[in-house]
Order: sequence, then C-alpha cells, then structure tokens
Amino acid sequence: MGSTYAVIMAGGAGTRFWPASRSLKPKQLLPLAGGDEALLAATVRRLRGRLPADRIYIATGAHLLEATAAAVPEIPRANLLAEPVPRNTAPCIAWATNTILRRDKEALVAVFPADHFIGDEAAFLLCVDQALDGARRGYLTTIGVVPTRPETGYGYIEKGDPILEPLCDVARFVEKPDRERAELYLAGGKHLWNAGMFFFQAKLMADAVRTHLPELASGLQKVEDAAPRGDEAKTLAAVFPNLPSISIDHGVMEHERRLAVVPGDFGWNDVGSWQSTWELATKDAAGNAMPTGAVTVEANGNLVCDLRTSGGKRVYAFVGISDLVLVETDDAVLLLPRERAQDVRAVVEALKARGDGKLL
Amino acid sequence: MGSTYAVIMAGGAGTRFWPASRSLKPKQLLPLAGGDEALLAATVRRLRGRLPADRIYIATGAHLLEATAAAVPEIPRANLLAEPVPRNTAPCIAWATNTILRRDKEALVAVFPADHFIGDEAAFLLCVDQALDGARRGYLTTIGVVPTRPETGYGYIEKGDPILEPLCDVARFVEKPDRERAELYLAGGKHLWNAGMFFFQAKLMADAVRTHLPELASGLQKVEDAAPRGDEAKTLAAVFPNLPSISIDHGVMEHERRLAVVPGDFGWNDVGSWQSTWELATKDAAGNAMPTGAVTVEANGNLVCDLRTSGGKRVYAFVGISDLVLVETDDAVLLLPRERAQDVRAVVEALKARGDGKLL
Repeated sequence: MGSTYAVIMAGGAGTRFWPASRSLKPKQLLPLAGGDEALLAATVRRLRGRLPADRIYIATGAHLLEATAAAVPEIPRANLLAEPVPRNTAPCIAWATNTILRRDKEALVAVFPADHFIGDEAAFLLCVDQALDGARRGYLTTIGVVPTRPETGYGYIEKGDPILEPLCDVARFVEKPDRERAELYLAGGKHLWNAGMFFFQAKLMADAVRTHLPELASGLQKVEDAAPRGDEAKTLAAVFPNLPSISIDHGVMEHERRLAVVPGDFGWNDVGSWQSTWELATKDAAGNAMPTGAVTVEANGNLVCDLRTSGGKRVYAFVGISDLVLVETDDAVLLLPRERAQDVRAVVEALKARGDGKLL
Repeated sequence: MGSTYAVIMAGGAGTRFWPASRSLKPKQLLPLAGGDEALLAATVRRLRGRLPADRIYIATGAHLLEATAAAVPEIPRANLLAEPVPRNTAPCIAWATNTILRRDKEALVAVFPADHFIGDEAAFLLCVDQALDGARRGYLTTIGVVPTRPETGYGYIEKGDPILEPLCDVARFVEKPDRERAELYLAGGKHLWNAGMFFFQAKLMADAVRTHLPELASGLQKVEDAAPRGDEAKTLAAVFPNLPSISIDHGVMEHERRLAVVPGDFGWNDVGSWQSTWELATKDAAGNAMPTGAVTVEANGNLVCDLRTSGGKRVYAFVGISDLVLVETDDAVLLLPRERAQDVRAVVEALKARGDGKLL
C-alpha cells in the first residue's frame, strides 16, 4: 500500500458570511471559528498531525489561487489545484485523484472540506485513522457525524451492518430530510450527518469515476494526456467548463456497493452561517460574544464581529438587544437576528441587483 | 427702551447622546438634527435673523469655552460667558443679565436653550418678536410650545387670560405630569410646553432676582463689584460654586406675578434623545434613517448615525431589524431600541463605574 495524501476542497464562495466573505475572500480564508486562524489554515494544521505538507493538496478556484497560497504558505505551490470554474465535488475529487495517482499508483486519499470546524482534534484524527483503515480495506469510506439535533439542513448517511468496529456498511445516502424525518433519524441512532469527508484508494476512485461518470473520466483523461507535454493548465481550462457538474455523493458514492462509514463525534460544526460563529464563540454569562470591553445592559445572545482592518479598538455598548448579529468590515456593516442568519443571501442578492460588485 | 440682546444657554452635558456626546463635546456642539450644522450654530444662525452677532451672548461651561468659540466663530469672544461650574439656569441667566446691564441699562434680553430644533424658523422669529413685545410691556415673558402629544417629560405652562393677543397671562407653571394629566392638558388646550425660553427687561429680571433669590443677587454683586477692577474672572471662580443651584422657573418665574406667555407652534423639538434624532431625520418609506446606499430587507424604523471621522463610507445592511438605533463613532458603537433611547444613561453610568473616563 502506498502513502496517504489529503485533498482539501477549498473552492467555496460563502455568501452566507457577507460582509466578511467576498468573492475573493471566501469563508475558508476567514477566521470564522474564533481566534485568528482561518478555517483553511486550521484544516491544514489538523492534518499536519498525520501528514507532511507535501502530501496535502488543496483544490480551489483559479481566482483564489494567490489568496489560498498566502493563507497556507507551508503547502508547496505545486499542490495547489486551481479549478478554472467550479464544477461541484466530483470533478474536483476526480482530478485531484488523478493528479495524486501520477505520483503514487498505490496512494490512499483523504478528502476534506476546507471550511468546517472540529472541536476535538484528537478524536477527529482517530476517526481519520479508522476511515483510512476502511480505505485500505478497499472501501470508499466516509466519516458520518453523530447528530446532536434534528437538523434539516444536512444530508444523512444511514449506517448498515458493522464491518469491523467502528467501520460499518452504508445502508444508503439520504437527502436533506424534513423536520419529522430528521426527528426520527435522531431518535433512531442509525443516521449520521454527511460531512463531506471521503477516504479511498486512488485507483479505486479512478475506477469508480470511469464506471459511473464516464464523461468526467474521459474529459479528465485529456488533462492526463496533456500533463507529460507540460500542457496541463491549458487543457484543463478547455476541458473543465465542459465537465458534468455533479457531487461525488450523487455521481459516485450512491452507485458504489463497497462503501463504509465511521461514526464521528468530535465537535463538528459546518460553520454554515453567522449562527454557527456564535455557537462556536466564547460567550459571556448572558450569551454575548462581543469584543473585549463591551458594555451590555439587558442584552443577551448577541454576536459582534469587528473585522475592520483600520481604525482603533472600539467599545460596543448594547442596551436591551437580544440575539442579534452585528458584523463590521471596512466597507460594510451587517445587522440581523441570529435566527435569520441565512438571510444574508438577500443582502448579497440586493447588492448584485444594483450592480454593487465591489462589495461582493 | 434699549436694544435687544440674546443669551444662549449652552452648558448642557447631554449624556443621552453618548457616544456622540462627550463631556468635552456635548449635545449642543453636535449636528443632531440632521445635516452638518451643530445645534448651537443653528440657534445662533436663527437669531442672526434679528440680532447682530455682538448682541448675542453664549453662557457655557469653562471647560467648553474653546470648543464653543470654535463652533460659533462669529460671536465675539467677550460675549462667551464661562461658568466655572454648572449651577442651573437662575445663576446663569442672572449673571448674563448683569453683564448685559453693564452695557445697556435699558436692555431687553431673550434667553434660549442652545440645543433645541426649530422646524419653522419664520414662525419662531414671529413668536420671538411677540414675546419681546411682552417684555417691552414689562412682563417676564415665555414662549410656550403648543403640545402635539401627551408628553410626560416636559414641564407645562397653563395659559391665563389674554393680555393682548397672542400674549396671555400665565395661570401657573406645572411640573412634569403623569400620563393621565398630560392627556387632560393636551385635550384642554390651555397648557403649553415649557421650552426654556425667557424674554424680559434686564433691569426687571435683576430686580426679580434681588427679590426672590437674594443670596444669588448678593453673590453676583461681588462679581459686578470686581468687574471694574478687571478682577471679574477670579471673583467669579470664587463666588459661582457657592451660588444656589436653582432653575429660573423655580427661583424666579413661579414667584412673579407679571408673567406672560406666547403660544408657539413652529416645529419645536427638544432633541432629547436618539429618538428625537430619528423623528427629525429624513427617512425612507419604511421609516429608516440610514446612510446613503443602505440595504434594507424587512427593516423598519431604524436610525443609523455614522459619526466616524476616519475610515471610508460603508454600506449598512439591515435584515429583519426594526426600530433600533445604531450609532458609530471612532471609539464606540451603541445599539439599542429607539423606545429605550433614554437608557443610554445606563451605558454612561457603566463606563463611569469602571473608570473608563476617556469614553465619557
């Protein structure tokens, strides 16, 4: 068996974190889980507990290449994979897999989103080891997060029979459920959140792509053919926009039979909105996550993110304000209730509609 | 009869406008009624419609002398009266009256707060003319603002019989009423808001002070005695802190019998809190007073005051936010519901309690 490699998918746009996130500064490049560490940098740092930097690959958008390189300077430039356009996860993973296969025919590959939070990193790395063990055994393996609430915003993975504890068969992938079904999933104990992490032998994934997504495989073969001629980038630019835009779940995993899942319970958070940022933040006794020195009078459950890069420290004073999110950058200020955190999209749409591109 | 002089009382502290107002930048020095014109500057400008600058006096606190001079550069420096400590309105008006009497024994004096808003300036000046006519006839005259709501935050003046329309006797001064009485006052049509404007012959006011506040009169006489020796400032500093701290209403007006009032209806607003600022501001169809370019989604009745002096223009985006006030300065941010605008004091108290003097 060959070495283990990681692929971090860092192409997200993250409009839900406007005004912090912008088209050229998306979610994964921001320290949205508290502290100063961007989510991508944290993802790399965690994996450095198992892998040398030169076996960590980062797939991102071509327009984000420089910012990504600056965010994780320890990763060799050759390991940054720049997608000419976003085509969902199957083309991304298949291309990265091919790239790694050129280097190591026996490679094990672990795929992670760049923009999630992991609370218990030791528990996480243990799960990664277990999932890699599944991959070594020839399974396309995932980690499924043990649910803590009847979440309707995630896809689920239904566990099947145990293979070898903690590795289990996958009974099926399940789309985002309604509330009632989500409650049943939570009570039943068989369903796990699909957190977008995948572990496999590179050659098996390449085979699976050829089988289930032949159009994708043949498109990427042109890139492989061009690579020895030093012509990879140009071919990629021509081919990539025409690849099928499909997720690895729908395109490959759901059609495979040799699947496994490892249940994981390590304080996972998808950092999906400002609500998540509040959940992850250090809060005072009244549930306020506000800059040091804040004055609160009958104020509860608020989040203030002061992301200005100029201007000095300021005192935030909240009187009679509950469960709001206030985000400040150098050129924008967002105020909305925490429970409407998803509605940031409405602001982004309004700015788009009026052609205010410099704020997007 | 001598000339007419104005005294503008500009000694207010204005903690209700924190973080815009500070001990060295109180309410009257801020453009709180919209636009760029500070309230004091607007008060002076209005009076310039009737009076030359050298007959306008401004009483303020010694610590505010420089900032006041800078705010109204057209007023001669000798017309700025610096109170060593604040002692309420009776000492202020009595001292200013004495100062004017030295210059003109037959002076008519008109006293105005520095920090109110007047919507209809022509109607206001007409009332001033009428009130000065009352003063010329020997009445201590006030302007009473025709009430538009059952306000419990102001004192009232009950009109008596007409003297010579629109001049009326004053039946009595009334303290701030409870809601029920305020409703009765509004319905009855006899009660006017006491807006703190007074018009009188200087010599009659000096007589009244001697009669009703002999301690104040004798204290100020020491200042008068010192003035010819060029020793006024030093004597003032010694005498002023020991003067009785009392309002002109309680100390003089309520004891006088030759009183008159002119009803006024000229878009008066006492600019008492951020709520007033919202009332006076230009608002969009949803009642939001926000900087140009704001994005609002299901947001109503909000006030945003961006008073930063550094940093560029910013887009304010409010989603699902109603009736809040957001004020930003270079070193502080205030967020509270409009209906709790008075509770800014709680923030100021909290900052005092923790010794955060530089923010006060």
